[in-house]
Amino acid sequence: MRVGFIGLGGMGAAMARNLLDAGHTVLVWNRSSEPVRRLADAGAIAAGIDEAFATGTVLSMLSDDAAVAERLLDPAVLDAAPAGALHVNMATVSTALAQRAAREHAERGLRYLAAPVFGRTDAAAAGNLTVVAGGDPAAIAEVAPLFDVLGRRTWPVGEEPAQANLVKIFGNYLIACSIEAMAEATAVIEAGGLDPSAFIDVLTDTLFTGPVFAGYGGMIGKRRYEPVNFRLPLGFKDVQLALTSGQERNVPLPFGGVLRDAFLDALAHGQQEQDWAAVAETARRRAGLA
Amino acid sequence: MRVGFIGLGGMGAAMARNLLDAGHTVLVWNRSSEPVRRLADAGAIAAGIDEAFATGTVLSMLSDDAAVAERLLDPAVLDAAPAGALHVNMATVSTALAQRAAREHAERGLRYLAAPVFGRTDAAAAGNLTVVAGGDPAAIAEVAPLFDVLGRRTWPVGEEPAQANLVKIFGNYLIACSIEAMAEATAVIEAGGLDPSAFIDVLTDTLFTGPVFAGYGGMIGKRRYEPVNFRLPLGFKDVQLALTSGQERNVPLPFGGVLRDAFLDALAHGQQEQDWAAVAETARRRAGLA
Amino acid sequence: MRVGFIGLGGMGAAMARNLLDAGHTVLVWNRSSEPVRRLADAGAIAAGIDEAFATGTVLSMLSDDAAVAERLLDPAVLDAAPAGALHVNMATVSTALAQRAAREHAERGLRYLAAPVFGRTDAAAAGNLTVVAGGDPAAIAEVAPLFDVLGRRTWPVGEEPAQANLVKIFGNYLIACSIEAMAEATAVIEAGGLDPSAFIDVLTDTLFTGPVFAGYGGMIGKRRYEPVNFRLPLGFKDVQLALTSGQERNVPLPFGGVLRDAFLDALAHGQQEQDWAAVAETARRRAGLA
Amino acid sequence: MRVGFIGLGGMGAAMARNLLDAGHTVLVWNRSSEPVRRLADAGAIAAGIDEAFATGTVLSMLSDDAAVAERLLDPAVLDAAPAGALHVNMATVSTALAQRAAREHAERGLRYLAAPVFGRTDAAAAGNLTVVAGGDPAAIAEVAPLFDVLGRRTWPVGEEPAQANLVKIFGNYLIACSIEAMAEATAVIEAGGLDPSAFIDVLTDTLFTGPVFAGYGGMIGKRRYEPVNFRLPLGFKDVQLALTSGQERNVPLPFGGVLRDAFLDALAHGQQEQDWAAVAETARRRAGLA
Repeated sequence: MRVGFIGLGGMGAAMARNLLDAGHTVLVWNRSSEPVRRLADAGAIAAGIDEAFATGTVLSMLSDDAAVAERLLDPAVLDAAPAGALHVNMATVSTALAQRAAREHAERGLRYLAAPVFGRTDAAAAGNLTVVAGGDPAAIAEVAPLFDVLGRRTWPVGEEPAQANLVKIFGNYLIACSIEAMAEATAVIEAGGLDPSAFIDVLTDTLFTGPVFAGYGGMIGKRRYEPVNFRLPLGFKDVQLALTSGQERNVPLPFGGVLRDAFLDALAHGQQEQDWAAVAETARRRAGLA
Repeated sequence: MRVGFIGLGGMGAAMARNLLDAGHTVLVWNRSSEPVRRLADAGAIAAGIDEAFATGTVLSMLSDDAAVAERLLDPAVLDAAPAGALHVNMATVSTALAQRAAREHAERGLRYLAAPVFGRTDAAAAGNLTVVAGGDPAAIAEVAPLFDVLGRRTWPVGEEPAQANLVKIFGNYLIACSIEAMAEATAVIEAGGLDPSAFIDVLTDTLFTGPVFAGYGGMIGKRRYEPVNFRLPLGFKDVQLALTSGQERNVPLPFGGVLRDAFLDALAHGQQEQDWAAVAETARRRAGLA
Repeated sequence: MRVGFIGLGGMGAAMARNLLDAGHTVLVWNRSSEPVRRLADAGAIAAGIDEAFATGTVLSMLSDDAAVAERLLDPAVLDAAPAGALHVNMATVSTALAQRAAREHAERGLRYLAAPVFGRTDAAAAGNLTVVAGGDPAAIAEVAPLFDVLGRRTWPVGEEPAQANLVKIFGNYLIACSIEAMAEATAVIEAGGLDPSAFIDVLTDTLFTGPVFAGYGGMIGKRRYEPVNFRLPLGFKDVQLALTSGQERNVPLPFGGVLRDAFLDALAHGQQEQDWAAVAETARRRAGLA
Repeated sequence: MRVGFIGLGGMGAAMARNLLDAGHTVLVWNRSSEPVRRLADAGAIAAGIDEAFATGTVLSMLSDDAAVAERLLDPAVLDAAPAGALHVNMATVSTALAQRAAREHAERGLRYLAAPVFGRTDAAAAGNLTVVAGGDPAAIAEVAPLFDVLGRRTWPVGEEPAQANLVKIFGNYLIACSIEAMAEATAVIEAGGLDPSAFIDVLTDTLFTGPVFAGYGGMIGKRRYEPVNFRLPLGFKDVQLALTSGQERNVPLPFGGVLRDAFLDALAHGQQEQDWAAVAETARRRAGLA
């Protein structure tokens, strides 16, 4: 297939590379040029955003709402896209942006899917992502072969694109809640004279065997927050996406309010460059352990 | 081995039965007589608490602090126990009670271990519990063969018995937090027009593969809270054990405050007889979905 | 003095009327025409926004950030204003908007003050408002005679306009917190078989003698939420201004998170048209009293 | 009148003194002897608890539930009291203790009133307390002349003694909530470059004119927490009384959960000896201001 790919950050570059390796023709664009050069060396074609859309099938992986709005909802870009072109936005963005994007594509006879993914750069590199797809089932079917290259499984969750973003946002919400829960528990464990790491070992061996508890719990138990997989301010952004999504639907989120404060506390204490698991240090500060 | 076993509720009866089946001689006591009769039919010896202690090794599985204090910290019982007798308390009790019990046993030359377990009655019946042991390592080694009958693995966590209770209490705390996190997330998912059950399927297939999310998430996603594994007021009791344990060590627990209110809301709405996963209905009520 | 006045809602109309009555020449503008007609009957001059600015001194009282940005930060308006013109924004807006407004006025050689007020329409009509003024002291002195007409006292709080907005926002935050605190307390009082109104009487006679507790407490105690002084969604807007102001300065606000959820709960239960004191019903719902 | 008075701490000593000065005969008891000596110098009669009860009318002002239970619910004391003797407990105790006390007095043909007071030692000395009375109206009428000596006003709130305790506990709850609300607001004010004290001045001049905001707000605004009127651990005790009272009636208290954590944070940071207004420092710590 001939496809465009917009946004070559850590995730996007790995995903585009897998599409190339699977034999697809990939026209790539990125804000900075170095990632483009690297992909071009691997066989990709450097292109403008308009050229990427001109293929009729464009995947995008930009960093946030603002970048998507500026680059991909630019009327000049959308007006120039060929009739029926399909844009698959794989980034974690707000449901409000997804609704706006769906509308602005539809108004011009373009098609829009939301297909955010679970998994980090290692999973992206291994083609091991989980794809959550929202939008027209026929359009999802059309790009299913691409999703099969990028991930181990695709979950269609609803006919409105924003619904896929909701699933992604609240998946991340569950991770953030798990981090805070482990932070609170290990603070008491530490105050009780026990090794938090041993506590995490017991729990992840029995009740909480999934990767979230093992991965983040391992970091929290040992207080070793490097390498940084997901920067704390990005985690805060996702907590805010959850709060906003809840607010738009009149759903109170008391755990979300606690998370918000924990992240602000971490930012107030200079933890901007740490992994979001390091928000656990807030629980230690509250207890006078830090 | 010849051992006493005190407390034949759902958990205790299954555990005592496994000890019998493994060839041990088990003297059993229970507040009501029917469970004693059933165990006796299987080969146990009906006994008084004093006779159970007289074996020199007694395991207990009573329901809460009050029952333990009344039955097993009764001075008459402890004063009559043979020198060096070992009492292994496998119930979920407060760390304050564990500290008191350890002291009152030691004062009389008796030995005390805390060995609370993870796992419900099905795991107890299958000999598949996880045992968390706190206290003197030599004493733990002495009863290790019994633990091997009861569970799949034993985790020694500290030389003070109360430390094992702390691990158990905060294991349950993580479960309660997971329930509330899923409740909040699925309330937004439902308000967004999606099937909460599908959301849970995506999450438990990827990030949250352990039994807690699959089990409780399954109940919450389908809003099917039966059969009742763990009654809501018992879950509330465990949340309070966590809050109290944190308070004794000056550790704030903001998620715990939210849990407390969610359980009170559930109790105020007549959910006393439901499984503690049904506390998730509180999130739906808050959002006007119930 | 010859002044412009933009925005003739309940507050603005009463304020403009007082300026007229004090002998000032007032050029008024409003989105809808009826309030303009009424003021003109009292001696005001109907005008365009540009004419209001052309007086060199314009006071504004629009409803929210969006209205201020659209009407008063319109480049066409600001570019046409005479050099040194002074704009006094008396509305409750975000500190971010105040910062932007100050910058955009300064860039054009215009002057900007923030002068939000405490007091409702009755206080506005009586010239009994409290004015909180932020910005250049010389500019504040210049309009002090106007403030003296509008209010009983003016508090200069800082040389940056946004600082006055911060004081106003957190004054409202204290009111919202007082409402929630009384809501929680009266829910227990009611559950304990006592008359919440009697409880409020005791408290407002002794410890809490100010108008906030007497006024809102009276409504909550009697559960009589009419007449509507301040609609619940406007109260929610102010809670969000507080949360955002805190967030921009990395200040956690745990009470604010609780307020957010209480307002969402109220909105989810159809309380949009009620006074914001009616958010107290959320506490009753949580306790199964509603 | 001839009355007994039990408990001569700061509050009790001032109250007993006022009764003496008003011409009553007062038999006093206290755990330590120095306060007894001082009152005796002023004309009181040193007595045993039994002698105090023997007067037929005994007022008590002990520090907490435990002291009341030990000293005044001692069966030996109650069994020896004359038929129909009236015990007026003016301390801040739990509603559960009040219910127990009422029952244990009634069982012996004794009468029990709860009459907790608002006001500190200065108000006690000035005879300026507010008395909240719960219990049989006839009994309240009987001691009304004593209440008139002690306070400026008596509020009968219900026929069950515990109801007066509930009013007192939730009056203190409103104070604690006000402290936290001011703490959060002033943290943002400080982070915004303004003087918290000026903010408090504006607010207490307008919306919050009562003694609580002026008094505690003054301390918080200036961060001057001395002299210590009410020690932080006592404030925490009262927050816990509120949480427990709510819990017994299935009433969630989300602000109470926040307060609980703020007090624990303060205790974890060594603030045991400070006034409870100093819990405001927790808000500054969270924001990285401390």
